[in-house]
Amino acid sequence: MTNPAAPAPARGAKVLVGADELRALVAGIFAARGVRPDDAAAVADALVWANLRGIDSHGVSRVPRYVELFDKGQSVPDAAPTVRRPRSAIAIVDAHAAPGPVAMNLAAEEAVVCARLAGVGWATVRGTVHTGAIGYYASRVAEAGMAAVAAVAGVPNMAYEGARGAAVATSPLAVAVPARRHQVVLLDMATAVMALGRIAQLKAAGATLPPGVAATADGEPTTDPALATVPLPVGGAKGSGMSLVFEMLASGLAANPIVPGYHSGSKEGRRHRQNAFILAVDVSAFLPLAEFTAAVDDTVDAIKSLPAADGTREVLVPGERGRRSEAARRRDGVPLGVKVWGELRELAGALGVPVPAPAGA
Amino acid sequence: MTNPAAPAPARGAKVLVGADELRALVAGIFAARGVRPDDAAAVADALVWANLRGIDSHGVSRVPRYVELFDKGQSVPDAAPTVRRPRSAIAIVDAHAAPGPVAMNLAAEEAVVCARLAGVGWATVRGTVHTGAIGYYASRVAEAGMAAVAAVAGVPNMAYEGARGAAVATSPLAVAVPARRHQVVLLDMATAVMALGRIAQLKAAGATLPPGVAATADGEPTTDPALATVPLPVGGAKGSGMSLVFEMLASGLAANPIVPGYHSGSKEGRRHRQNAFILAVDVSAFLPLAEFTAAVDDTVDAIKSLPAADGTREVLVPGERGRRSEAARRRDGVPLGVKVWGELRELAGALGVPVPAPAGA
Repeated sequence: MTNPAAPAPARGAKVLVGADELRALVAGIFAARGVRPDDAAAVADALVWANLRGIDSHGVSRVPRYVELFDKGQSVPDAAPTVRRPRSAIAIVDAHAAPGPVAMNLAAEEAVVCARLAGVGWATVRGTVHTGAIGYYASRVAEAGMAAVAAVAGVPNMAYEGARGAAVATSPLAVAVPARRHQVVLLDMATAVMALGRIAQLKAAGATLPPGVAATADGEPTTDPALATVPLPVGGAKGSGMSLVFEMLASGLAANPIVPGYHSGSKEGRRHRQNAFILAVDVSAFLPLAEFTAAVDDTVDAIKSLPAADGTREVLVPGERGRRSEAARRRDGVPLGVKVWGELRELAGALGVPVPAPAGA
Repeated sequence: MTNPAAPAPARGAKVLVGADELRALVAGIFAARGVRPDDAAAVADALVWANLRGIDSHGVSRVPRYVELFDKGQSVPDAAPTVRRPRSAIAIVDAHAAPGPVAMNLAAEEAVVCARLAGVGWATVRGTVHTGAIGYYASRVAEAGMAAVAAVAGVPNMAYEGARGAAVATSPLAVAVPARRHQVVLLDMATAVMALGRIAQLKAAGATLPPGVAATADGEPTTDPALATVPLPVGGAKGSGMSLVFEMLASGLAANPIVPGYHSGSKEGRRHRQNAFILAVDVSAFLPLAEFTAAVDDTVDAIKSLPAADGTREVLVPGERGRRSEAARRRDGVPLGVKVWGELRELAGALGVPVPAPAGA
């Protein structure tokens, strides 16, 4: 519950909110804004998961943006995604502008069902908005004992090797692999060198950017936060090439291309929208799951046992840092910036949703 | 035919050999070494394709290495790969140590057959050797009107973020997407910043390496060719994470893990071997192929029309540089280093295979 008598936290300080309370708050906001209760809970779970994993840029800070998309009619709170299965191993989920997690959860389920039947299953998502941290959906597939590969295509916000300005999206790739003794191995990476949110933070602080993370309007790499306009792709042509082919696979197969419309200069072409795909691979169709997960465990052990490079304390496998963040934040609460917390409180207040007291500051 | 009277080309010079002649020469060597004629032609085609595309490190320079693998019993020239299809959308190709292109071609065909039936098809390749440039197989799938994703896992030769020494392989990723007005869009990239072959060239020349491409034995980045021992992954944790999950997907599903055995320190664990997967996506199961290829064409046009960054003459899409190389080399011949040409002549001579006269030098 709100405690209007509590002193306002200092600017720049963090408010700690329990994960369960945060989930309930966000689900409440979405439900009050017209999202079906189950879907509202699903969106909240996906966003809070990102915060728990330490990916704050993809977490509850995006709630006001969803509400804005609802207000503009660019996302439909109670849209009911439809599914076609034209062949046994594929599903096409038309999101009808439903919030990303609603469409992506359905796609993950469809991919798993197809994979159970055919060995692998591919689900394409057409026309959704903000999918959040796609490691979430890949992890769900892995928890079903399957391997997962997922990617998202969106509106250009990243440089393309050799070109000026925003050309392609920072389209993420996620790969999740189930283990047994160890946790799911989860690679969840943008095709940009540095996340947009992190660059924005450094820009806001007026800090010099590390070399190679952003370009000027002329397409030249810069470390000057005032001149940096777009993030650079990881590995130059490799990162921008990955983003481009993800657009072709995600948006092309969804019959909903984004890149050509964006560069046509039309207003409609710049509208926020995303397409995606999720591939599930049913490990047990190839070999006994326990044999596979034992090999994954052994592989993780081999990597963790490598001598650390100078200046590195511990060799980590993909997903390990996020898992540690999750354990700590489940225990201590999710740290939210005062601005984000204020926006959530304000939205909740306007919609009559009760606000929990923060766990600490 | 050999011309013993021809003057030896100068050291460092290139010999130009016609693609057809080179293919016949290499196929002749493989056939004489016990590879079935059709398979010998297939291996030669894959290797010469890499040379045509400008990826000389994956081309006919590898022929002596295949022969060495035959000699050591690590590859079996006349192995007949076997196929299991445990479910409708997946195939497991056991290479039985056949040369890479023999197993990979079969896997590409299997993936296409599965995809035709089920919408997508996944073929795992178990226990092959040197697969060459995997863009070749992805391109073949794309020429069947399908999209393709392929990756290979091999014996560690690249650094892992935060660790010392060779930890994971420079496992390549290839994605091919069919177009109509344009050629197939083909991303074919290693997970290393710079190819091993290129680093070796710079080391041989004693040239300073660009920053961020190689590490010392202690795992520290270096530009000193004398200290550089392993190539660095592209984007640090991103590249090494991709390599690690490709190992889990390719080798894990093949029940043939490479990374744990390698780090166990056993001699067997360091033996050259590769696993792979090829995914085919039947575009026409999602939407009419012509609609898809039109979107790909429009996307390519949008990217090609972007203003070039300072210092860039033309914005290129993945595969474009290789295609131009292919056109030029088909016309002018394939340039081979004197050393490579000498090795091929020597092998051919020893096996009684006729050697074509080079087209020029």
